[in-house]
Amino acid sequence: MEHPIIAIIGGTGKEGMGLALRWANAGYKIVIGSRQDEKAIMAAEEINHRLGINSVIGLEYAEAVTKAEICVLTVVQSAHQQVLQSLKDVFQGKILVDATARVDYQNPRPPDPPSAAQQAQEILGPTARVVAAFQNVPAKTLTKAIDQPIDADVLVCSDDIPAAQLIIQLAKAAGLRGYYAGYLANANVVEGLTSILISMNKHYGIKDARIMVSGISDDS
Amino acid sequence: MEHPIIAIIGGTGKEGMGLALRWANAGYKIVIGSRQDEKAIMAAEEINHRLGINSVIGLEYAEAVTKAEICVLTVVQSAHQQVLQSLKDVFQGKILVDATARVDYQNPRPPDPPSAAQQAQEILGPTARVVAAFQNVPAKTLTKAIDQPIDADVLVCSDDIPAAQLIIQLAKAAGLRGYYAGYLANANVVEGLTSILISMNKHYGIKDARIMVSGISDDS
Repeated sequence: MEHPIIAIIGGTGKEGMGLALRWANAGYKIVIGSRQDEKAIMAAEEINHRLGINSVIGLEYAEAVTKAEICVLTVVQSAHQQVLQSLKDVFQGKILVDATARVDYQNPRPPDPPSAAQQAQEILGPTARVVAAFQNVPAKTLTKAIDQPIDADVLVCSDDIPAAQLIIQLAKAAGLRGYYAGYLANANVVEGLTSILISMNKHYGIKDARIMVSGISDDS
Repeated sequence: MEHPIIAIIGGTGKEGMGLALRWANAGYKIVIGSRQDEKAIMAAEEINHRLGINSVIGLEYAEAVTKAEICVLTVVQSAHQQVLQSLKDVFQGKILVDATARVDYQNPRPPDPPSAAQQAQEILGPTARVVAAFQNVPAKTLTKAIDQPIDADVLVCSDDIPAAQLIIQLAKAAGLRGYYAGYLANANVVEGLTSILISMNKHYGIKDARIMVSGISDDS
């Protein structure tokens, strides 16, 4: 099967850039989406330059979504609802991967339900295939040693299991292990893990506490 | 420092028995608490017999709490509020470790806030030192090979950091790695992890998916 085209909505931020780098490096066609197309083009050129390729392109949000089969949402949490509202029409029928973790880094506490991904599903309606993933992956680990696997696991939640399975493959292509972690409602727990990881980092004076899954063999 | 006396409230259930076995085996004085003292005495005798000791005793709930410095609550979730209400007076000044995960095993979904441990704090008032821990440890792994460490980590949440640190030591004594995971509010996320673990078990056809912490060295 040919690789699907991936749009990174909010692709000029650190998390989006990190995922884009790794997927482009694994041979995926990447579209960087930004509010302003000049910023998107600059980010795309930065990735092309780093990887010695020319396949990554930059476009304004709606055009980026239109070009792609899978859209990964990595905008800042304050822009989450507004971006989804404005792109509602173009998202229909696409897989939307919501990487939003609603957390205050200064004062971490678990977010109230519903999860960001459930809010996305509510805004986009039932034909969008919403998957929650990548909320806990530290951005800086994505951009370092991009050929190397990362020992942080990705909990993938969706009501659409085939869509979740595609995203588990995408996680693998980025050097991460992905696991199906239940329905979209469970994504609120995954967002809350960010609050736990920040609390651990503060308490132990470290920067990259991570959650791993144990007990599931690679061929499960 | 001498080991504190530990009461297991709901100590005749699988989780409570498992923790009691491991702590008794590590040299802690254990009091099994049950609604009926005959059941508590039988459970205590079972542990004494298995370990070839005679230090574990069984008492009715309130007497068990009174005897102990640390009380670990492992009652079924439907009894959680009522047991706390009925023991409110004897819990004052004690450390209460709440191991309750509010989850429906048939239809797992994240519990609504506040966490069970926050509800416990609310019922007991500010002088009880409430810690949330051990919500995700599969009971059957506790009772097997009790001398061996378990590769499941314990996320310890509390507003009282010295109390949390004592419980991290207790986790270690039971063969588990414990980590301080933030304030009591974060315990709702830890309860929700049970929903994720059950979802994983169902999806992958396994029985003991576990969450591990990575990135924190043992001497942090």
